[in-house]
Amino acid sequence: MRLSARMSGVRRSYIREILKVTQNPEIISFAGGLPSPDHFPAEAFARAAADVLRENGPQALQYSITEGHPPLREFISRRYKEKWGLDIPVDEILITTGSQQGLDLMAKVMLDVGDDVLIERPGYLGAIQAFSLFGANFLTADLGPHGVDTAQLAQRLKDRPKIFYAVPSFQNPSGITYDAATRRETARLIEDSDTILLEDNPYGELRFKGEAVPPIRAYLDGSRMALMGSFSKIASPGMRIGWIATGPELMHTLVTAKQASDLHTSIFAQRVLHRFLEDNDLDAHIAVIKKAYGERRDLMVDAIIRHFPEEVRRTEPEGGMFLWGELPRGVSAQEVFAKAIERKVAFVPGLPFYVDGTDNAFRLNFSNSTPERIEEGIKRLGTCLKEVLSGPCRAAGTCAPAADPGV
Amino acid sequence: MRLSARMSGVRRSYIREILKVTQNPEIISFAGGLPSPDHFPAEAFARAAADVLRENGPQALQYSITEGHPPLREFISRRYKEKWGLDIPVDEILITTGSQQGLDLMAKVMLDVGDDVLIERPGYLGAIQAFSLFGANFLTADLGPHGVDTAQLAQRLKDRPKIFYAVPSFQNPSGITYDAATRRETARLIEDSDTILLEDNPYGELRFKGEAVPPIRAYLDGSRMALMGSFSKIASPGMRIGWIATGPELMHTLVTAKQASDLHTSIFAQRVLHRFLEDNDLDAHIAVIKKAYGERRDLMVDAIIRHFPEEVRRTEPEGGMFLWGELPRGVSAQEVFAKAIERKVAFVPGLPFYVDGTDNAFRLNFSNSTPERIEEGIKRLGTCLKEVLSGPCRAAGTCAPAADPGV
Repeated sequence: MRLSARMSGVRRSYIREILKVTQNPEIISFAGGLPSPDHFPAEAFARAAADVLRENGPQALQYSITEGHPPLREFISRRYKEKWGLDIPVDEILITTGSQQGLDLMAKVMLDVGDDVLIERPGYLGAIQAFSLFGANFLTADLGPHGVDTAQLAQRLKDRPKIFYAVPSFQNPSGITYDAATRRETARLIEDSDTILLEDNPYGELRFKGEAVPPIRAYLDGSRMALMGSFSKIASPGMRIGWIATGPELMHTLVTAKQASDLHTSIFAQRVLHRFLEDNDLDAHIAVIKKAYGERRDLMVDAIIRHFPEEVRRTEPEGGMFLWGELPRGVSAQEVFAKAIERKVAFVPGLPFYVDGTDNAFRLNFSNSTPERIEEGIKRLGTCLKEVLSGPCRAAGTCAPAADPGV
Repeated sequence: MRLSARMSGVRRSYIREILKVTQNPEIISFAGGLPSPDHFPAEAFARAAADVLRENGPQALQYSITEGHPPLREFISRRYKEKWGLDIPVDEILITTGSQQGLDLMAKVMLDVGDDVLIERPGYLGAIQAFSLFGANFLTADLGPHGVDTAQLAQRLKDRPKIFYAVPSFQNPSGITYDAATRRETARLIEDSDTILLEDNPYGELRFKGEAVPPIRAYLDGSRMALMGSFSKIASPGMRIGWIATGPELMHTLVTAKQASDLHTSIFAQRVLHRFLEDNDLDAHIAVIKKAYGERRDLMVDAIIRHFPEEVRRTEPEGGMFLWGELPRGVSAQEVFAKAIERKVAFVPGLPFYVDGTDNAFRLNFSNSTPERIEEGIKRLGTCLKEVLSGPCRAAGTCAPAADPGV
């Protein structure tokens, strides 16, 4: 088979392979990135679907425009205004088939083979995959406790990467959030650069604690960046509805690329989602999710404090779905993973979130496990960590401490 | 803005721009490619949505697997067996976000910039767009009354294009169908070549007259080709659900590419569609569509015979949604279009279906107009055609007859 060169460098998702291992219901899995299905508003969606098909059946089942359902884009525009005072016109919002398609389209319209793309270290796996398929060459800037290391960012921007991809709120995988100063500085650096900021904000509405900070879009003109959002974490991922907001020039090109990619996102799903949003209190629904996730996050942090060996560092996310752990340097998270599976607990080793082979970190998801399973799973994981940390490298005294205290 | 090289050669869809002109409801439009919304089963979909959300709400709203909903893929596999005796295992069927995504994914996994792709002449615009975005260099083989010109096909395959893209049943734009002999010969030529056949079959179930012929897949091993299908023309395009069936090697690569493109197609839409298919008689529904489209096609052919000047050649499609007209050489369909808009009737000039600038053909859609509007629209169009054909080229005697009688 004569495949394209781009496919030769791409492996099937590492997480996907891990998730296969964790299909066994006996395994307590912190590996997935799934929202809790306990909080999906199935009944409200059923009412919305019935109303849409009764009142606008033909329109919901026919072909539609590439840009997306105008009332849904108006809802998104209005919400930016109400939440953050941002003026993002409807014409500058494109509905995508999940945020993942936003990544694919941005890569498609911006990247030629070998172009530099700057990502956070660690970085979001789905973005690494999407950009890899268009031949990206990755540069990285480290994440610290307050967000991206802006000195490194300034340095890397001198190489004129085409895109800086950032997840400034409750990042996947690290759970780290840029503080306001880091956001302002990031905006300033981008403003002075030749690079487009791609701000991905799927978790921004899921803040359990700390002070709200606006998207970087609040500090930067829409023509210098693209802001992605998603309904996956606040309504339903199964709908596959996200969006990308950017200035007219890039928007025009993204629409052309989307038309060639899938014509438009399911208008049936768009209309049902829009009806759900209009007829229900989204903020009340988000409050329920935040309460549940916040409790689970607290339980996980508390269990980690009690069960993990102290050499293991961790983030304390103020929102989102993920917590990040770091092992002493030289200790392999994949080795821990192998032991963990034996004890029927799973997580994602950090390897796929790095483009440099770093292997001493791991991601834990707290949104999709019950309190009982969080306690039991962290306890089992603690046992595995203790075993590995008392193993050969420890005995040889070669287990260096983790280098970056923030991550 | 530093865009990718691929975006520089791509124009926004010509049809899209034309459709904007035809938004005016006073205009009788044969320009779109829309199924008739009169036959969308909105009530049956409403019942399906209610049942899915009541019985499987969390699963319908959660993330799902990239390959697609297994029972939906089983339905497709079973239908190939029942209709054509084809054995296509579920594992070799990937659900896509409409057939358009199948084109995008095939281009993504197979094409490097400058690779040759063989298409029919005229060819499907959406495929030209998708392949163009991945830097395809187009070769063409003419369509004749019985399908692709197999002598030309044999010749072009010597250049080892990576893909031969064909729509063998009721092609868009021409309405032409490959007969059984042409299908067998196409399969044989592909078998002996280094080229993958991409068989696109969105209209295959919409045959009004003539004898049914199986997909080329019936004559060719799945490892030598990919077969695309769609629910857009037999159930609902707004759902955005199609599929691609191919052998394990290509399938594996397509799944990897799809994961990076949109993770998976809306599982909500997939489950609602599947429930609709299980609880309703799809063949009875298709019979209703075929009856309506067949009547409209007959009315359009009849009106053309009465109203068009005889120099205009046309196809007589046995199914699908489109009819193709050809003007004497040297006469511009775009000139006719300009006159037609003045008389409030629209169609698609042939230009975007060619990669060589051919301009003397046009596409008429018959599925989405009422009988009254078909008669009135064809009458108006006939007037425009007569005006153009009695114009300067006719006066100068330079209007050559169309060269390819079949198309």
